[in-house]
Amino acid sequence: GEKVKRYSGLAWRTAVKVGKEDPRRVVHSLKVGLALTLVSLLYLIKPLFRGIGQNAMSAVLTVVVVMEFTVGATLGKGLNRGLGTLLAGSLAFLVEYIADIAGRVFQAVFIGAAVFVLGATTTYVRFIPHIKKNYDYGVMIFLLTFNLITVSSYRVDNVWEIAKDRIATIAIGGGLCLVMSLLVFPNWSGEDLHNSTISKLEGLANSIEACVVRYFHDSENQETQDDSTEDLIYKGYKAVLDSRAKDETLALQASWEPRCSRYCHRIPWHQYARVGAALRQFSYTVVALHGCLRSEIQTPKSIRALYKDSCMRLGEEVSKVLRELANSIRNNSQFSTQTLSNNLNEALQDLDNALKSQPQLVLGSRNGRVQKLEAEDTAAARTSLSSVKNDFFSPRKKVLRPQLSKSAIISLEFSEALPFAAFTSLLLEMVAKLDHV
Amino acid sequence: GEKVKRYSGLAWRTAVKVGKEDPRRVVHSLKVGLALTLVSLLYLIKPLFRGIGQNAMSAVLTVVVVMEFTVGATLGKGLNRGLGTLLAGSLAFLVEYIADIAGRVFQAVFIGAAVFVLGATTTYVRFIPHIKKNYDYGVMIFLLTFNLITVSSYRVDNVWEIAKDRIATIAIGGGLCLVMSLLVFPNWSGEDLHNSTISKLEGLANSIEACVVRYFHDSENQETQDDSTEDLIYKGYKAVLDSRAKDETLALQASWEPRCSRYCHRIPWHQYARVGAALRQFSYTVVALHGCLRSEIQTPKSIRALYKDSCMRLGEEVSKVLRELANSIRNNSQFSTQTLSNNLNEALQDLDNALKSQPQLVLGSRNGRVQKLEAEDTAAARTSLSSVKNDFFSPRKKVLRPQLSKSAIISLEFSEALPFAAFTSLLLEMVAKLDHV
Repeated sequence: GEKVKRYSGLAWRTAVKVGKEDPRRVVHSLKVGLALTLVSLLYLIKPLFRGIGQNAMSAVLTVVVVMEFTVGATLGKGLNRGLGTLLAGSLAFLVEYIADIAGRVFQAVFIGAAVFVLGATTTYVRFIPHIKKNYDYGVMIFLLTFNLITVSSYRVDNVWEIAKDRIATIAIGGGLCLVMSLLVFPNWSGEDLHNSTISKLEGLANSIEACVVRYFHDSENQETQDDSTEDLIYKGYKAVLDSRAKDETLALQASWEPRCSRYCHRIPWHQYARVGAALRQFSYTVVALHGCLRSEIQTPKSIRALYKDSCMRLGEEVSKVLRELANSIRNNSQFSTQTLSNNLNEALQDLDNALKSQPQLVLGSRNGRVQKLEAEDTAAARTSLSSVKNDFFSPRKKVLRPQLSKSAIISLEFSEALPFAAFTSLLLEMVAKLDHV
Repeated sequence: GEKVKRYSGLAWRTAVKVGKEDPRRVVHSLKVGLALTLVSLLYLIKPLFRGIGQNAMSAVLTVVVVMEFTVGATLGKGLNRGLGTLLAGSLAFLVEYIADIAGRVFQAVFIGAAVFVLGATTTYVRFIPHIKKNYDYGVMIFLLTFNLITVSSYRVDNVWEIAKDRIATIAIGGGLCLVMSLLVFPNWSGEDLHNSTISKLEGLANSIEACVVRYFHDSENQETQDDSTEDLIYKGYKAVLDSRAKDETLALQASWEPRCSRYCHRIPWHQYARVGAALRQFSYTVVALHGCLRSEIQTPKSIRALYKDSCMRLGEEVSKVLRELANSIRNNSQFSTQTLSNNLNEALQDLDNALKSQPQLVLGSRNGRVQKLEAEDTAAARTSLSSVKNDFFSPRKKVLRPQLSKSAIISLEFSEALPFAAFTSLLLEMVAKLDHV
């Protein structure tokens, strides 16, 4: 009694949590229930039952299997199922036609051989990466339907009827699924991908800001706010690092979706996936930045204080660029790169000057090496910023350009270059890598 | 004609490549073909057909759907399918029992309502992460079978017969799948996971070694061997960075597999997943190391040459530890940590001495800061090495201990600490992070 109570309580809390995380899940569940009930009516109501016959079950099956959370996934599965069934049907009839020529025994052997060959071939085909990614389900359905029709044809005379009914019911089931997912509170994979890209950008922005703030924060009351900041930083880049599989699935599903942008170009979903990859590379840097915070070897407070303002400003600028990028993706609009990159440039210059104005300290501790690094970095930053500017005159795709995050990285170097001279060159490397993404 | 030829040529090459990558795929394809042919015999041979009836199709369906590449995946799907069917059958009979009490109209309404409620509930349940991870397929089959039986019960009298046949044929199909995948050239997910862990360790070892060698290599004939080394380094850590989704799937499938170690403990597959996570953290460091190679700001050759030997030695020791770890996992055996960590310690000491013997250079360029870093690092390395030693006296799990890679990281710091003083503290951070994995 006690235990059951505890478990049911836990189950209830889990269920509520899942619903609260994304209320669309509740809606989707109700949609599936409704679609199933509707398709069951085919069987329950007498006139409809006569027309469709026993095969109504196949429609139920289709609804259960094809109905997915997003439009893209449903469409992808539905089309795969439809195409697989049609292809298998055609092939099965060919096999039956050949098998019918000879006697009963030959027919059985021939069917057996066809099943073996097709079974082995399709299974093998499913290992090809391109097929596995796009048409895995369709190939499986092809094999299923082919076997069903071919083997049935040995005992049943009206195979054509079976096949026709099967195709009709699959069409009914699939059509119902499409109507339900396209017209009743549709969930778009593309939208999910869009939103997740935005939230990843903002998460990284928060993460960087929190890193810089905490680095220069006077550590008196550090313990109290430690955990929450730590959490913020960690969540920011963790989300990006873990996003690969989810992003790719969403991009794939989105590519099935019949949506277009305002000007009716196809939205380049694979660009989102590439931005995701660039962000992942970028977040390796943030991981390193976070590492500086938790390092046991810390730069003395006095040195940090000297560069606090310019570093803070730079950190803010970087986050601002990321946020601006997120906003421009959100609104599908351009943003004034000029102003932003100017601000970034100024902030870089600021830090540069701050470093130069305290030569005795920097030189004392690191003998001009930092200076050299800084100088080279600034040059690199300038080049890349100007290239960003040039790039931004090319239309449309610009919101998805990873170059901006590049300039963000370069400036990041600066924000941390002071206590970790070499860290700078490491980040510069990241920039070079981003170039190749 | 020309185009068709080219495409078929491409298709053929792709097919051959897929087979060469993993010859087990060919075997698996033949196995599926064989299983399908065998199950078709149920239908083709007369005596068998009488016993099983039309429902033989359900057996074919089961084989197509359940038969997966590895034993673990097949078992997981088979059990999910079996359990889902049984549960759904029981529940369907309950519903039918209640529906039978009242009149025809009430029955239809009740069935419709039951379909709606169950459909919505099961769809919602599939959003719960734990269910989605382990029982997604089972829940789907539950919904499918429930609908099939409940809805059929309205028109067909001998539902019991339908259900019995369905369960029997699923058992036959599932049983055949299990026999085929367990007894005929079985592919174990656990083995795949085991091997991929080993190859990841070795890949990282190669990657690190190549990094260190290239860093200290005289860059005269750099261009010629550049690409191949670059490739080696990149592949080494890329494989680790990309391994997350695959590892988790394999670990999940492996947990279904009825295998045990020599002493009949259950092999702790989740430990492999944890080692994978630790290796991923580690490879962020290797990414950074690789970054040092491609950096535009390079330490002068003369300074590098001074520490070449000790750094090379350290790099070798680190790779050796990784290789040893790979070997010990391969043979499921212990290895003499004592010797290895002693060697590592000596190499560290060596570099330490080399750094100290050239104080004017290091001090000149970085004014003692390196020294301080080194000293602290050595201390940290010592502590962690001793903790590794202590850990290795605990039995069994030791082969999967991530701590060793920890000491590897610490020494890595050293191998690169020279030109990038701060990089060191960054790596130290990685170590701290690894502690929390």
